Amino acid sequence: MHFVAALDDNPDLRAVLCLFEGVATGAADGFARMSGRPAATLLHLGPGLGNGLANLHNARRASSPVLNVVGDHATWHAALDSPLSSNIQTVAANVSPGFVRYGHRVEAIGLDAVEAIDAAYGPPGSVATLILPADVSWDEGGLPGPVSAGHLPSRVEPDRIASIAALLKTSERPALLVGGSACSRPALEAAAAICAGSGARLICETFPPRLSRGVGLPRPERLAYFSEYALTQLEGITDLVLVDAEPPVAFFAYPDKKSELVPEGCTVHVLAMGSDDVRGALDALVAELGAEGSVDRPKKAPDSNLPRGALTAESVMQAVGVLLPEDAIVSDESVTAGQYAFHYTRHSAPHEYLTLTGGAIGQGLPLAVGAAVACPERRVIALEADGSAMYTPQAWWTMARENLDITTIILNNGAYAVLGMELQRVGADSDGIKARELLNIGQPDLDFVSIASGMGVESRSANDAEEFVAHLRWSLSTRGPTVVEARIPAVL
Amino acid sequence: MHFVAALDDNPDLRAVLCLFEGVATGAADGFARMSGRPAATLLHLGPGLGNGLANLHNARRASSPVLNVVGDHATWHAALDSPLSSNIQTVAANVSPGFVRYGHRVEAIGLDAVEAIDAAYGPPGSVATLILPADVSWDEGGLPGPVSAGHLPSRVEPDRIASIAALLKTSERPALLVGGSACSRPALEAAAAICAGSGARLICETFPPRLSRGVGLPRPERLAYFSEYALTQLEGITDLVLVDAEPPVAFFAYPDKKSELVPEGCTVHVLAMGSDDVRGALDALVAELGAEGSVDRPKKAPDSNLPRGALTAESVMQAVGVLLPEDAIVSDESVTAGQYAFHYTRHSAPHEYLTLTGGAIGQGLPLAVGAAVACPERRVIALEADGSAMYTPQAWWTMARENLDITTIILNNGAYAVLGMELQRVGADSDGIKARELLNIGQPDLDFVSIASGMGVESRSANDAEEFVAHLRWSLSTRGPTVVEARIPAVL
Repeated sequence: MHFVAALDDNPDLRAVLCLFEGVATGAADGFARMSGRPAATLLHLGPGLGNGLANLHNARRASSPVLNVVGDHATWHAALDSPLSSNIQTVAANVSPGFVRYGHRVEAIGLDAVEAIDAAYGPPGSVATLILPADVSWDEGGLPGPVSAGHLPSRVEPDRIASIAALLKTSERPALLVGGSACSRPALEAAAAICAGSGARLICETFPPRLSRGVGLPRPERLAYFSEYALTQLEGITDLVLVDAEPPVAFFAYPDKKSELVPEGCTVHVLAMGSDDVRGALDALVAELGAEGSVDRPKKAPDSNLPRGALTAESVMQAVGVLLPEDAIVSDESVTAGQYAFHYTRHSAPHEYLTLTGGAIGQGLPLAVGAAVACPERRVIALEADGSAMYTPQAWWTMARENLDITTIILNNGAYAVLGMELQRVGADSDGIKARELLNIGQPDLDFVSIASGMGVESRSANDAEEFVAHLRWSLSTRGPTVVEARIPAVL
Repeated sequence: MHFVAALDDNPDLRAVLCLFEGVATGAADGFARMSGRPAATLLHLGPGLGNGLANLHNARRASSPVLNVVGDHATWHAALDSPLSSNIQTVAANVSPGFVRYGHRVEAIGLDAVEAIDAAYGPPGSVATLILPADVSWDEGGLPGPVSAGHLPSRVEPDRIASIAALLKTSERPALLVGGSACSRPALEAAAAICAGSGARLICETFPPRLSRGVGLPRPERLAYFSEYALTQLEGITDLVLVDAEPPVAFFAYPDKKSELVPEGCTVHVLAMGSDDVRGALDALVAELGAEGSVDRPKKAPDSNLPRGALTAESVMQAVGVLLPEDAIVSDESVTAGQYAFHYTRHSAPHEYLTLTGGAIGQGLPLAVGAAVACPERRVIALEADGSAMYTPQAWWTMARENLDITTIILNNGAYAVLGMELQRVGADSDGIKARELLNIGQPDLDFVSIASGMGVESRSANDAEEFVAHLRWSLSTRGPTVVEARIPAVL
């Protein structure tokens, strides 16, 4: 409460109200991915942190700098085990393994805050949690924290640069696997130059936090989501050089399938990790290889064929690919339609592509909120599935309240299609009625025009491709948030 | 996935699909409060458990038996730290302090399940969490667990009964504080007899999980929510006898206010705890005191004055009090309007009143789902505030899917009124614009008719008392779920 009251003392602090903590934490992640700076969430004790946990999990996987301020009971009240009390530290440890602090002394809270912000910045960025007892907020005697210079990234030793350069020259079939901060435009340009200059393949991780792409930009292969495809994709690589990426592993385990994806006989090397100066290491490697100016630039012009006729996940994404505005930010949580989304936007105008880093659904709409707050001059496109949209639909209200330029596209197929796929893949597929019904979210029908309108966001629904294209044009030319629902065939 | 597929192998298992884990966990709590039996939730790794945490917190505070089954990666996949991996145990420890098990062996998983269910049953009931790795589900070699007789409650020793009886006879100003299972009708009848026979006051805790009440039933005083009122209420009590209740403490701490509410000079005694045979102890005490037949029965007939004119929180609850059907189940999450709800239903037809045991909002609608699943023959009334309804609105979809007889009443005042009150109470009240705006959820306006209709629930909105009464009559006479929104004045 005192934290809330103090917001008006600092004109530089912007307060964005969310109706559910999962929206706040996802928005903080989106803000971090687009600005590189931490936003603070303000959460209410253990249950508030719990409500925000799923999107903090995604933020942790994205190495996004986020500062959680978790309001807690007064220090002297905690031992009484009153109804809202719980063990906040245990929950925080799940998403803030590196920094959880209980700020129990008013004299130290300024320093605690500075250290929490430093921890959030990293590098690598991380989720830092500061538990703030009520009496520490309201007691007198607080001191401002010291001005911190933060932590600098580690410089990658010239020896390592030289040895990777030598390796790339001699390796039979080398590849660079880029992730994290190595997926920004300048880092990708350097990585592409390295690959052009050395014959290495350029691969990006399956779920990069933020990938710069579109016409004229380097186009790394994306590591396949399904492990069997990824294994085929990586087959024959003799040396895999990691650039702010982890050794590739399967997203889920399957019976009798491998989870570790590094091919046999392939050696894994590390150019730079998240705590390193990733960009600097890539630039140094370009220089070491003399690969400046060797960038491979795709020349293909954007597609201009708009879809017609039946509306499907594919035709929706085809239209998105054609109409995507320059400098757009795409928040992709279209789940099973994601393959089409990624494919059809490959030649679109240059844009940033934000993915579901931690696999915890309910990210897409909140992430769009944060990205739009960070970049008010850019159009944000949230690609949503019906099931994932229903995790954090409250985000629409914040979009309306802040009048954010966000186009939400919902693919409504009335199903948890991804679960149908996974049921099959783990060999649990059956004709059982109860199991099948648990994948059917079209009974009753979710009417997203009605739901989003109820939160103040103007919304339209499309049943065929022409209608969808018209609605999408309308949405992209409308200031503030809008929703376009695409009613596509059920897949069950 | 294999758990889902196996549902069809057991015709006794009913699967209820929820669009968000917080709905599932709250529904499990509601089912437990009304049936006394655990429902199982099926949650997806750490983020799924996180999404369900707030309502599990409430369930823990209610001592509701709940079994969480948290699906996890295959045991051999866990070490790879793939995107959805996280430390599930830490999160589970927050709500399942008594039982978290990682079921890592297929031969033992049957026994694990039985022990988890036993732990959930208690007594006291609790939240038990069984983490179920994918390979333990799909591997062959599972064995059914043993048939368990469960744990019996402890019998309270006759010596304790005799000493409490002696105390009640000699104490100057004794009181019974009942909570938990002591708030069921038969337990309350016994407690009321004890009080009538001994001159003790009968007080119930502020947030009992389930309180039987209405015309003809014992009517304990409810311990006040605000600590200063509670202190006044308890003043002068010389002996406080706890019956499945904790020594009273303030919900929140405030500057310069006491958090411990037991008056000075008052001795606290325990008749029975949650692990004891509470009902048996009360009956034994009735017998020891010879207090059979001494029950104080309020004779007041139900109110019949329906409100007219302006619609306010008070007039809404006045109408609810008059029209509440016999045997209704009230799920109260009306927050600042709760004082009116409790007051105006005191003479209503006999009903069960479910409260926000842990203070984590987002409980009301999910709890109603679970209560309606447990008691299909009874009408469930969810009393909701606008802010709390927006935590778990997905519950409406499950109400529609299962065609549950639930009347949701939303008090839409466009504000987090409770926060305005708390800001003032902690002395943080200010004229700051940013702080004030964080309490204003009426900009944009939340249109609950539109939101709930979008999930398949027929809904109506009322602007004056006559309209509200008409809509409430319509709702109560309609099978399946309906929503009545009451638009009441903003309080900011």
